[in-house]
Amino acid sequence: MISQDNQSLEKRPYILVSNDDGINSPGIYAIVQKLKQIGEVIVIAPEHEQSAVGHSLTISRPLRVTKVHRNGEMFGYAVSGSPSDCVKLALCTYLERKPDIIVSGINHGQNTAINVLYSGTVSAATEGMLFGIKSIAFSVCSHDREFDIDYASDVALEITKKALEYDFPKDTLLNVNIPATDKLQIKGTKITKVGNGYWKDFYIKRQDPFNRDYYWFSGEYFESDDSLENDDIAVKNGYISVTPVKYTLTSQEVFEHFKNFE
Amino acid sequence: MISQDNQSLEKRPYILVSNDDGINSPGIYAIVQKLKQIGEVIVIAPEHEQSAVGHSLTISRPLRVTKVHRNGEMFGYAVSGSPSDCVKLALCTYLERKPDIIVSGINHGQNTAINVLYSGTVSAATEGMLFGIKSIAFSVCSHDREFDIDYASDVALEITKKALEYDFPKDTLLNVNIPATDKLQIKGTKITKVGNGYWKDFYIKRQDPFNRDYYWFSGEYFESDDSLENDDIAVKNGYISVTPVKYTLTSQEVFEHFKNFE
Repeated sequence: MISQDNQSLEKRPYILVSNDDGINSPGIYAIVQKLKQIGEVIVIAPEHEQSAVGHSLTISRPLRVTKVHRNGEMFGYAVSGSPSDCVKLALCTYLERKPDIIVSGINHGQNTAINVLYSGTVSAATEGMLFGIKSIAFSVCSHDREFDIDYASDVALEITKKALEYDFPKDTLLNVNIPATDKLQIKGTKITKVGNGYWKDFYIKRQDPFNRDYYWFSGEYFESDDSLENDDIAVKNGYISVTPVKYTLTSQEVFEHFKNFE
Repeated sequence: MISQDNQSLEKRPYILVSNDDGINSPGIYAIVQKLKQIGEVIVIAPEHEQSAVGHSLTISRPLRVTKVHRNGEMFGYAVSGSPSDCVKLALCTYLERKPDIIVSGINHGQNTAINVLYSGTVSAATEGMLFGIKSIAFSVCSHDREFDIDYASDVALEITKKALEYDFPKDTLLNVNIPATDKLQIKGTKITKVGNGYWKDFYIKRQDPFNRDYYWFSGEYFESDDSLENDDIAVKNGYISVTPVKYTLTSQEVFEHFKNFE
């Protein structure tokens, strides 16, 4: 099932790039410049930041698409929707042919453990995977948009090349998290599992200038693992974390227990 | 692990109700009236319809909360956010104590197979489950808001009572789909798996009155199963489908294959 796929090495791959930080983020610009070295790249990404949108889809209103230029060149198409909208719209209307791979990111901020469920970056890759296309989500573990992501982009390029070489199951995407450390401090790459980290949520309640209450989501993140096999711990210890993500949604245990209960 | 929980029968349970159709939908009103027969009910739901929002969270702007009256009585609190926002905000700020159960719905429209990932109704239950609280999502398989959901509400009440009686694993929620047929045509209840149904997506491209293009998501849904063990097929054949949903996110197969690859 997992084998080297020589065919995709023979021609320049066709690569769809999206993200959730929005088409104007530094992360998507950096990865696009690298990917152009190896393939034909088309960018279709949200016009605005879409962090924590999860796997949302715009169905109650239409989508608008506008061309975006960066540094004087045509860069891509901005969509008035979510990362999932971008990938669906790209595959259904904008692309000339099925892409060889879908790259989402590079996201500014870690997407490990339960954050996989909330992440717009991962959701773009999920959408690609649901179409049967190899898909990878890349995140660098810093929310600082000034963080130098040149090294992270090199990593993303190398992993994209490897993913193009190898066939992996069509029901699986790769979720890559890159530590926000100096290149020299990176210890290597680990294939990891989705960890058990969790949020302790709270809301900050304040009053606006018109004395009306508002609530703003906050929270503290806890890693609850200590195994380097888990994504959180791998990145914390200076490893690039590559997690094969597959959505198994049925609880087999509860199904078996209750199935004759009817 | 799964045992009868007699304690919760002794006192009136404290029940949090949310949904994704919005606090003014007929579905949430119907289930709340039924649940009041057995417990103390608090309603915290989106102020507007949030269909297909998936597991989205509002982090870039504050949330507003307003009291909503229906039929001359205080009905609940409307939140300017997603189903996940409602449950998080309820549990962090509004509730006096941890609820015994969280009920999401009744949704107008089927939430089976891959729709579990896109469904706001399921996401409210997911959020409750992540807090370690028993959670159930209810949907009736008709988008017609005029559809008589009295029978579906009776079903939801009975299943909620059963769920209060039985302990099930804290990492599992129940996703219930009720056929949109006459009560007499219901054949029974089946414990099911998340099926393999999928969407063939397309976008309708039109021009607005100002000659600008817009795209509107559409699509056709295909059931790809024929086993009554799967949610889609169970409801199609007149059974109430009860699916234990658990998010297993790692592809064990790919992990094992590549783990010594580093």
